[in-house]
Amino acid sequence: MNLLFFFIFLASCLTAGMTGAVFKPGNWYDSLNKPEWTPPNWVFPTAWTTLYILMSISAALVAAKAGENPDVGLALAVWGLQIGFNTLWTPIFFGLHRLAAGMVVLVGLWLSVFAMTVLFWQIDWVAGVLLLPYVAWTTIAGALNWSVWRRNPHEPVVQLD
Amino acid sequence: MNLLFFFIFLASCLTAGMTGAVFKPGNWYDSLNKPEWTPPNWVFPTAWTTLYILMSISAALVAAKAGENPDVGLALAVWGLQIGFNTLWTPIFFGLHRLAAGMVVLVGLWLSVFAMTVLFWQIDWVAGVLLLPYVAWTTIAGALNWSVWRRNPHEPVVQLD
Repeated sequence: MNLLFFFIFLASCLTAGMTGAVFKPGNWYDSLNKPEWTPPNWVFPTAWTTLYILMSISAALVAAKAGENPDVGLALAVWGLQIGFNTLWTPIFFGLHRLAAGMVVLVGLWLSVFAMTVLFWQIDWVAGVLLLPYVAWTTIAGALNWSVWRRNPHEPVVQLD
Repeated sequence: MNLLFFFIFLASCLTAGMTGAVFKPGNWYDSLNKPEWTPPNWVFPTAWTTLYILMSISAALVAAKAGENPDVGLALAVWGLQIGFNTLWTPIFFGLHRLAAGMVVLVGLWLSVFAMTVLFWQIDWVAGVLLLPYVAWTTIAGALNWSVWRRNPHEPVVQLD
């Protein structure tokens, strides 16, 4: 694996992960009506750290195939799209308390992660396998966002002045 | 130009641009002490819309060279990094009013945009030229963030509960 590629992809993940450090769940999230299967709070940073490392390894494997496989262009374009959605979700959900808009972003995230997994798999099956936990976690996150949205229909959004 | 590539890159830009739609400048930004050369408010969305279109064309040109040029892997990895920084800046600055942290993100954005321009240029000089306005605008945005930060040293940050 090309370490330079790995660290650039990991740095992109850190821009997404930074949102979790500055837009924290806090009292607002604790007070929401949530389903029984909601993972405990410590699971989230642990899961995301693991996923960011796995997806950076995966993307580094794919990027190394540019020059021999023309599909790398499309695959890495979709990588950029999912990192955008990933970075956008936290400020919308935890920053503005916009549960419905968060759901829209999560659908975009899920679709782009799924497309990325298929594209990466066709280029290097190991890269595809490394993304399966990301697909699974995004599915759980989507179900949780949906459930929280339905259970808290009158939750006020944050108004910035 | 491959239109599928263009629209995927443009969609990534929209995730970044969405932050500007939900974290608006508002009264807080208007009340800040700003330098005389601060562009009027209408310039910002106009500039960003133009830049997003230009950078999506540029990236589509580069992505199309995968399969013939191994450097496309590194170039598109850096594309993902700058989109992450771009999406992160607005919630930090306009959402949390964190002028210093915004400056750190802008330095990361500037460095990644500059590196992307050099890398794209080596693959396709037209793609490089299309990024020059982005380098210029990020430089202006960085100077503005710096100036606003120095002029408003005691500006309180937003505390999320």
